[in-house]
Amino acid sequence: MLEELKKEVLEANLELPKKGLITYTWGNVSGIDREKGLIVIKPSGVEYDNMKVEDLVVVDFNGKVVEGHYKPSSDTATHIELYKAFPNIEGVVHTHSTWATIFSQAGKDLVAYGTTHADYFCGDIPCTRKMDPAEIGGEYERETGTVIIETIKERGLNPDHMPAILVNSHGPFTWGSSPLNAVHNAVVLEELAKMAYSTEKLNNEVKQMQTELLEKHFYRKHGKDAYYGQN
Amino acid sequence: MLEELKKEVLEANLELPKKGLITYTWGNVSGIDREKGLIVIKPSGVEYDNMKVEDLVVVDFNGKVVEGHYKPSSDTATHIELYKAFPNIEGVVHTHSTWATIFSQAGKDLVAYGTTHADYFCGDIPCTRKMDPAEIGGEYERETGTVIIETIKERGLNPDHMPAILVNSHGPFTWGSSPLNAVHNAVVLEELAKMAYSTEKLNNEVKQMQTELLEKHFYRKHGKDAYYGQN
Amino acid sequence: MLEELKKEVLEANLELPKKGLITYTWGNVSGIDREKGLIVIKPSGVEYDNMKVEDLVVVDFNGKVVEGHYKPSSDTATHIELYKAFPNIEGVVHTHSTWATIFSQAGKDLVAYGTTHADYFCGDIPCTRKMDPAEIGGEYERETGTVIIETIKERGLNPDHMPAILVNSHGPFTWGSSPLNAVHNAVVLEELAKMAYSTEKLNNEVKQMQTELLEKHFYRKHGKDAYYGQN
Amino acid sequence: MLEELKKEVLEANLELPKKGLITYTWGNVSGIDREKGLIVIKPSGVEYDNMKVEDLVVVDFNGKVVEGHYKPSSDTATHIELYKAFPNIEGVVHTHSTWATIFSQAGKDLVAYGTTHADYFCGDIPCTRKMDPAEIGGEYERETGTVIIETIKERGLNPDHMPAILVNSHGPFTWGSSPLNAVHNAVVLEELAKMAYSTEKLNNEVKQMQTELLEKHFYRKHGKDAYYGQN
Repeated sequence: MLEELKKEVLEANLELPKKGLITYTWGNVSGIDREKGLIVIKPSGVEYDNMKVEDLVVVDFNGKVVEGHYKPSSDTATHIELYKAFPNIEGVVHTHSTWATIFSQAGKDLVAYGTTHADYFCGDIPCTRKMDPAEIGGEYERETGTVIIETIKERGLNPDHMPAILVNSHGPFTWGSSPLNAVHNAVVLEELAKMAYSTEKLNNEVKQMQTELLEKHFYRKHGKDAYYGQN
Repeated sequence: MLEELKKEVLEANLELPKKGLITYTWGNVSGIDREKGLIVIKPSGVEYDNMKVEDLVVVDFNGKVVEGHYKPSSDTATHIELYKAFPNIEGVVHTHSTWATIFSQAGKDLVAYGTTHADYFCGDIPCTRKMDPAEIGGEYERETGTVIIETIKERGLNPDHMPAILVNSHGPFTWGSSPLNAVHNAVVLEELAKMAYSTEKLNNEVKQMQTELLEKHFYRKHGKDAYYGQN
Repeated sequence: MLEELKKEVLEANLELPKKGLITYTWGNVSGIDREKGLIVIKPSGVEYDNMKVEDLVVVDFNGKVVEGHYKPSSDTATHIELYKAFPNIEGVVHTHSTWATIFSQAGKDLVAYGTTHADYFCGDIPCTRKMDPAEIGGEYERETGTVIIETIKERGLNPDHMPAILVNSHGPFTWGSSPLNAVHNAVVLEELAKMAYSTEKLNNEVKQMQTELLEKHFYRKHGKDAYYGQN
Repeated sequence: MLEELKKEVLEANLELPKKGLITYTWGNVSGIDREKGLIVIKPSGVEYDNMKVEDLVVVDFNGKVVEGHYKPSSDTATHIELYKAFPNIEGVVHTHSTWATIFSQAGKDLVAYGTTHADYFCGDIPCTRKMDPAEIGGEYERETGTVIIETIKERGLNPDHMPAILVNSHGPFTWGSSPLNAVHNAVVLEELAKMAYSTEKLNNEVKQMQTELLEKHFYRKHGKDAYYGQN
């Protein structure tokens, strides 16, 4: 079942090592079929080198395995929460990519310092609060989703214009219009984090870029008046 | 038309991913035929992997497409301004390469700290002022060119001896005697930015190198008494 | 003799250059056959490029060569001490990998800042005290093992839950349930050190992650209630 | 003439891009035949990609070209001075490798912080003073050699135990028992510089490693009682 989606989810998972976003199995990508209400996700702790379409796991919105001979990613419950809360997204990615994880560990937002950032994210990329002991001791992976959604809401952000978050003391999640688009956003996030770190070190008085420039670049590529790219 | 120039512009564009200067499509190279007054430039938002000679776009000095089935790079207007203002240059490059972009985001000049810098750039590489809301809201890409030219002029620089600039909150532009030479300068700029950053961190009292040494190295390679290389 | 173990030790040694952990011959891996009381280890100062199964050296617990045409690694005595003190380990790795060595040179513990760390190491990874002149002038390589074991004990650590250490002014040793598992831990250590360094620079008030989160992640992957991975 | 030496010098030059020490043509290696008093060196400004044995240049101790269809490296006069002053060396390397150049630009010695350093260099690697205008304006490349030799002497160093130097505002030179050994030292120097930089940032009170440990490691590999490696 869902053979086309599985192929895309496999391809998106294989992009993670190709783009240098992961060490060993530290990452996972999922995709969704919204009509059927089913999610295709990477199996837990399986190496990328020989992963095949049939190794992927199909789960429903309750996390129940509908198809697959492996256990799904241990982060499956987080993915499900995001699909439920953000109705337009079709792919979710989690990695421990170096620079995004550094911001997560430092508990700091990734401030928009330049047009590279503005081309993809319409504002600072938030870092969540720390999870509390009850959340950690309870349904931890589901609660990770909850704190992400809480952060996006509290900051007044549109998840379609802010397709990334930094989970405190953990690492990044990104999402997008497809599994591959969510990986694309994960690659961009990593490069932005790398640049923001040294931007702050080079100029310790640096501020967020001008709002005019931020919005110019974001809406040049996104929304109804976009003129970047073909079409 | 312009088949030879197209080949060179394609080759120069393909150098960008090969040299690690770009992520996805974040860069573009153009070349000019000054006799015909025509510019060959990368299409907007097209992947490098399968780019072909026939995908390149030919535009005139007004930005009008003369040949090509794609839209030209969204930065075309910036390239045109540079060709108009700097009469000796034959190629222009724009990237978001990591370290040069860090200096752009920090709003800092790239100071000449050693002979590696002096072999290519006769002085500090300037960072422009921030663009104002009217410039951003108006013909933004053309105004980006205007602020580059203004900066080169205000600093009293010869664009043939200073073939690079850092656009504030954005990233670098370089130019040169050919599209490939402009890419060469972009590669050097990136390495210089990487080294200058850590030079400043290692010695927070470091100053620009001695003028004698700067000029010795620059003129050893450039100008009529050059003796570096063959011939 | 020990042909299977030799193959695994060779494969584990070859992982070091593949994973970017070593420059030239700056690293070595060993494995143990606990029933026979014999250790298989890399020969001293031999290049990785053409290393073969028959180049590996078999030594006993006194460091006496039992088989092999090369001298064993100069660090053999350190490996032996670790196998004697930590009865469950089956593989030992020593490298001078960049970021772990930086922490060793700085004489600083590698603090647990995030779940990437907690997935592998149940607490901060300790840096040993400096060795004293008598230790350096005596049986230096054996004393290196002694100071590692002393540190693990004084910190009250379980070596099976803390399979790594930083030797002051020197570099890291890791161990594990097999030679390949010890290399896996060396790869993780290097990535953790890289991230911890910049985490501290980005937020100079950052503290160790919450104990609840540390233990949640460690025991999710290790111990009898583990649920990460397959089975 | 000197066909064997030329092959070795070519191989050593090709190691520079392979080991990531150079951008474009920013480096050169030479070797010497001390009996004949002739030096084989890379041609000036020639790309590495297609360099052949016959492209190498043979010069005498006055810098006169004895054989070759290219001009020799512009740094030839520096190489000659080093061969004249250090009678045991058989190869010389110059690069602008990133981290060693950062120390040169910052004008700082590369302090010995760990055993990786001590395995190759018996003490801190010195950075020269700045050259004065007369030296820069005169026989600049020869004077570069003079200031290197002056620094080695003033510090009371044995060039066979300290086969590297950082030229202020410029970059590193290394030497060794052969062209390939000099390249080996250049690779090690680069890695040491990378680690020393972050060691200082991680612990701003870090001091040179203990003399006992420094000498233990250096003489374990060098001199008559060496026991590292085979034989």
